Amino acid sequence: MLRLSKLADYAAVLLVQLGQLDTLATASSLAQSTGVPEPTVAKLLKGLAGDGLVTSFRGARGGYRLGRPLDQISVASVITSVDGPIEVTACVNGRYCDAGPLCSLSGHWDMVNDAVFRALEAITLADMMPSRPQAKAAPLAAIIDTSPRYRHGASS
Amino acid sequence: MLRLSKLADYAAVLLVQLGQLDTLATASSLAQSTGVPEPTVAKLLKGLAGDGLVTSFRGARGGYRLGRPLDQISVASVITSVDGPIEVTACVNGRYCDAGPLCSLSGHWDMVNDAVFRALEAITLADMMPSRPQAKAAPLAAIIDTSPRYRHGASS
Repeated sequence: MLRLSKLADYAAVLLVQLGQLDTLATASSLAQSTGVPEPTVAKLLKGLAGDGLVTSFRGARGGYRLGRPLDQISVASVITSVDGPIEVTACVNGRYCDAGPLCSLSGHWDMVNDAVFRALEAITLADMMPSRPQAKAAPLAAIIDTSPRYRHGASS
Repeated sequence: MLRLSKLADYAAVLLVQLGQLDTLATASSLAQSTGVPEPTVAKLLKGLAGDGLVTSFRGARGGYRLGRPLDQISVASVITSVDGPIEVTACVNGRYCDAGPLCSLSGHWDMVNDAVFRALEAITLADMMPSRPQAKAAPLAAIIDTSPRYRHGASS
């Protein structure tokens, strides 16, 4: 299964909802408008604020707004903020599975991992909005990395 | 977590191993050369044979060989064969999560899903081999789909 976590999915929904508001939103109002449970909303907003994807304002009239516009928030940045670095296999960055030295692909999943990251980095939350006319296109080099570190058995 | 299943990871290892052999290989010999447990190897080979990624030969000298060259086996095809269709969220192809009609992203994860699929479709097992000089590059259009079905709120 190559599956996004429910929390990352919810975070994207919250951010898109914030992007459609002109005023500050509270965890309570976001929970009501999105259907995501309030404790989950509060937890997610705290994490997203830590990564600058939302900004919090304290006080009686406090709340949250987007840290930057939706077209500057990539799907990859949302996933990374909620779930940590995108690694489609455990076999990346020099870490290996039980197969260890027998595995002919050791260290070579990095290419796959990076391609998935780049695909997700090229799509912003604005691209996913219903009213968005067209997906943003990224240079091919940003999707498939053919740099020397993937050649001749080199592993990062 | 956006994480590949261990079985899909093992399947890729087995296929690459088969691609390095001039003779037929048995589940037993593949288990020995890759470190993947033999029952797992046998189960994976059966599934991969069903999808034409390997071909089986019966008899005393029977065994398995690749169904097609490694440069014609995409990472996406391996994952799909082992785990089923690549769907990074449950919210694809018209199926929705608990948030239901409140969710502003309903039906719009398909774009993300397809971008990940295309990124994985563009990399073959040959690209991941240690001796491969360079990753195969796919046209940008094959990675980011900007077709009309993603526009103006259309969902497939």
